[in-house]
Amino acid sequence: MPPKNLLGFGKMSDQKNNPAKQALPQNAISPRRAEDFPEWFQQVIKAADMAENSEVRGCMVIKPWGYGVWEQIQSQMDKLFKKTGHKNAYFPLLIPVSYMEREASHVDGFATECAVVTHHRLEAVKQPDGSVKMKPAGELAEPYIIRPTSETIIGAAFARWVSSYRDLPLLINQWCNVMRWEMRPRLFLRTAEFLWQEGHTAHETSDEAVKETLLMLDVYESFMRDQLALPVIKGEKTESERFPGALSTYCVETMVQDRKAIQAGTSHFLGQNFAKACGIQFQGRSGSQEHAWTTSWGVSTRMIGTMIMTHADDDGMIMPPRIAPTHVVIVPITPKEDTRDAVLAMAQDFAKRLGERSFAGRQIEVEVDARDKNGGEKSWEWIKKGVPVRIEIGPRDMQEGKVALARRDRAHKQKDFLLVEEALEKLPSILQEIQDSLLARAREHQNAHMKKIDSLEEFKKFFTPTNEDKPEIHGGFALCHWAGSKDDEAKIKADLKVTIRCVPFADSFKESGTCFVSGKPSKQRVIFAKSY
Amino acid sequence: MPPKNLLGFGKMSDQKNNPAKQALPQNAISPRRAEDFPEWFQQVIKAADMAENSEVRGCMVIKPWGYGVWEQIQSQMDKLFKKTGHKNAYFPLLIPVSYMEREASHVDGFATECAVVTHHRLEAVKQPDGSVKMKPAGELAEPYIIRPTSETIIGAAFARWVSSYRDLPLLINQWCNVMRWEMRPRLFLRTAEFLWQEGHTAHETSDEAVKETLLMLDVYESFMRDQLALPVIKGEKTESERFPGALSTYCVETMVQDRKAIQAGTSHFLGQNFAKACGIQFQGRSGSQEHAWTTSWGVSTRMIGTMIMTHADDDGMIMPPRIAPTHVVIVPITPKEDTRDAVLAMAQDFAKRLGERSFAGRQIEVEVDARDKNGGEKSWEWIKKGVPVRIEIGPRDMQEGKVALARRDRAHKQKDFLLVEEALEKLPSILQEIQDSLLARAREHQNAHMKKIDSLEEFKKFFTPTNEDKPEIHGGFALCHWAGSKDDEAKIKADLKVTIRCVPFADSFKESGTCFVSGKPSKQRVIFAKSY
Repeated sequence: MPPKNLLGFGKMSDQKNNPAKQALPQNAISPRRAEDFPEWFQQVIKAADMAENSEVRGCMVIKPWGYGVWEQIQSQMDKLFKKTGHKNAYFPLLIPVSYMEREASHVDGFATECAVVTHHRLEAVKQPDGSVKMKPAGELAEPYIIRPTSETIIGAAFARWVSSYRDLPLLINQWCNVMRWEMRPRLFLRTAEFLWQEGHTAHETSDEAVKETLLMLDVYESFMRDQLALPVIKGEKTESERFPGALSTYCVETMVQDRKAIQAGTSHFLGQNFAKACGIQFQGRSGSQEHAWTTSWGVSTRMIGTMIMTHADDDGMIMPPRIAPTHVVIVPITPKEDTRDAVLAMAQDFAKRLGERSFAGRQIEVEVDARDKNGGEKSWEWIKKGVPVRIEIGPRDMQEGKVALARRDRAHKQKDFLLVEEALEKLPSILQEIQDSLLARAREHQNAHMKKIDSLEEFKKFFTPTNEDKPEIHGGFALCHWAGSKDDEAKIKADLKVTIRCVPFADSFKESGTCFVSGKPSKQRVIFAKSY
Repeated sequence: MPPKNLLGFGKMSDQKNNPAKQALPQNAISPRRAEDFPEWFQQVIKAADMAENSEVRGCMVIKPWGYGVWEQIQSQMDKLFKKTGHKNAYFPLLIPVSYMEREASHVDGFATECAVVTHHRLEAVKQPDGSVKMKPAGELAEPYIIRPTSETIIGAAFARWVSSYRDLPLLINQWCNVMRWEMRPRLFLRTAEFLWQEGHTAHETSDEAVKETLLMLDVYESFMRDQLALPVIKGEKTESERFPGALSTYCVETMVQDRKAIQAGTSHFLGQNFAKACGIQFQGRSGSQEHAWTTSWGVSTRMIGTMIMTHADDDGMIMPPRIAPTHVVIVPITPKEDTRDAVLAMAQDFAKRLGERSFAGRQIEVEVDARDKNGGEKSWEWIKKGVPVRIEIGPRDMQEGKVALARRDRAHKQKDFLLVEEALEKLPSILQEIQDSLLARAREHQNAHMKKIDSLEEFKKFFTPTNEDKPEIHGGFALCHWAGSKDDEAKIKADLKVTIRCVPFADSFKESGTCFVSGKPSKQRVIFAKSY
């Protein structure tokens, strides 16, 4: 079996026209990435047992292995938020419609996707056929919407809490569920209900608020890079992609394996818009009444979808070790009854000793899979779940005092036979190596599909599937000079489903040139891409 | 000032008829506990800055200091759940009405308090006066309710997950928000939206499920006793107080300072009711199709209200150290400009060294309150928040290498002057002493107001305010022999607002006697009380 080229789609589509295609590794995800990327994504989630659709339209059930990733994200990010001075609080799930109306573009932005609560009880109503059905009763004087985001309800609280410049800055974060009625839901990436954190802060000056907005974008960038192995690009959204009610929206964007972009997190400078809408006023240093300057920033369970689309392969999920709910699984191989207990005891002992070691600030999480099942079957389950390291211990290994170690970032049959002490010693650095290799691969893939494009013709070609290529996998990040109008942007979106993902911050994008649509001068390149 | 008698209501009501009443300690909560207990409770929450009402009917905003307690509860309980083999997952917020209808008593139990989602967008509608209002649009074919509890939606998932006895037991927990439309909301105790955890498990046999139900009740009991300093009593609910759809409901009950009972947590044995309603079936060991046996168990933000009503005093909240978001606050006293920096430096240094020590498995959480405010004012804020230990450091303390230490479970003017090293050394055990003293006081109070009652006349007297007593504070736990009917129970509830809180497990309640209402023989005493 050749070494896996996880992100080499070129090679994979070659395989499709190749008789070797029939020799799929046993248990691989079907379809493969190169065959049908969106369906492969759903199948990886299923195979990894991370989430599933529920009968509630657009709402998913996050299963323990998927929720375990969210728990890691939550506890690790929470530390970063606290380190930067934020405190958690909790605000109502329901928002009066009149609150949403306070900020005109905000209500327009969310009106088409609100779950509306109109009644507060159910009543048994006799049906024509004699049966009884529960119907909504107790109509509310004013309907509520389930929060799609909490600027207005948190703004109302901030208005009560702030009266002097001494009360500022107010640095609050909330972990919660939100709801946006999605017409085309997709597990993790776009669900009607999702879990997220939303930071909300109020400041004395515009400068301070902008600084906060950018600080939290930095927190997102480093977290996603270092913990999720996602090489995100920081930048600013254009006006047409801004959060409804924001003065500027900053984002972190990344490229997944089908070369589309995903916006993994956003940070908004809200100016005084929401402070005026919600009445967040304070007595300033000079004694005058002033409106606060506010920000909001958030990331969601979408990050999990982004990780899957970035790191998974045709065998299933690959978990970046720093975010994996379990770092190492130990699969005892017990073919014979007479050595079974001894092998299990060795596995338990190894697990105990490994669990006393730490990696990246956490105790190493080890699981011994002692289920009464065939060893190969168990190994495959863990491959699909993407556990970073599998350790198999069989009767012969036991005799030799060795363990067989397989890394999820390598071909699954490649095993290193290590002495117990050696394995214990090396595992923390092996986990970091896997972490690094995932980031390096994702970065390489992203770099390989970023292209400077300077003409409309080339642009169209870049974003149009060709015969040689897969219909789903083409394009990438087009780096273009841009000085076009909002209408130009809208036309590109309508024609090619391509949008400006961001105006990136990095110096490498700063150079003078000419907009490929309007012909006007431009000072830097922006990133165009198709996106999720 | 006399030493505080935190739980001695007798003494406190004496004070009311006493000229000393005018000499209230500066900044005490108004009204005092003995004057108006429910209002005192609201005022403590306000003074401690833990939560506040929002404009959304019955929904509270949990402020950082209150949410910090919830974060501690969550992280500490979560460890206990995981230790007992449970994994977290997340299920949809919305439940189709038809799901609720699957279990008849369940839907009846919750129908009167459901928030109902009937529409999925808002539409601008022009008003007669020319203005525009957003109105619900996009009516749903089937309405959803916001989960008041998740048996039916989690049951639907379990039905998908379970097919063989090998898939059992299934041990799942969910941390989330739920909603029950409350007509008389009260911060923390009874809010329309609240935060909780709900455990849901499925088992092969009835025995196993009952064992699980009781195991989790034990987890609740020990957590509440050891971490929240709440002396809860374990027992079973009578049929009339059972969870809608359960075969048996077990609970932990405790007495707060006005002698009323609070149910702090429940654990339900659901038999096969929900398994049949939701279709949770599996192939048993003998090959036949069987229905699983399920349980559910939960505790909520109500525990925070219970702690406040149990531990707070007329100066504000008292946090049990093991659950306090901050263990120790350091208030630098800086009256003179020339020693200010040195005092602040000493405070920071002390905080740093203290923060390296641990208490009850956590790093000691220390905060230096360096705000530009009067020291006395700052100290009072922390007294009200109930931080377990306050340390003041002034210029003279600094010269002597000492700190002034005040414990929140003692009179607030009582200070110990300790050498720095001594203070660092002793603080972990001082924190445990405070924890122990809070539990001992609460237990003493509970014991003092539990009374064996054997006649209806005495029973009525016990639960009727007298002239000597405060109108709100009377009664307690009446320990009575009981063999009455459901109707007898309902009559007592209607006449006296008193219910059977539980049939306690402890041996001390087991003795033969005669029911004080029906005259029938009884094998044990039950607990009657008024309750929140």
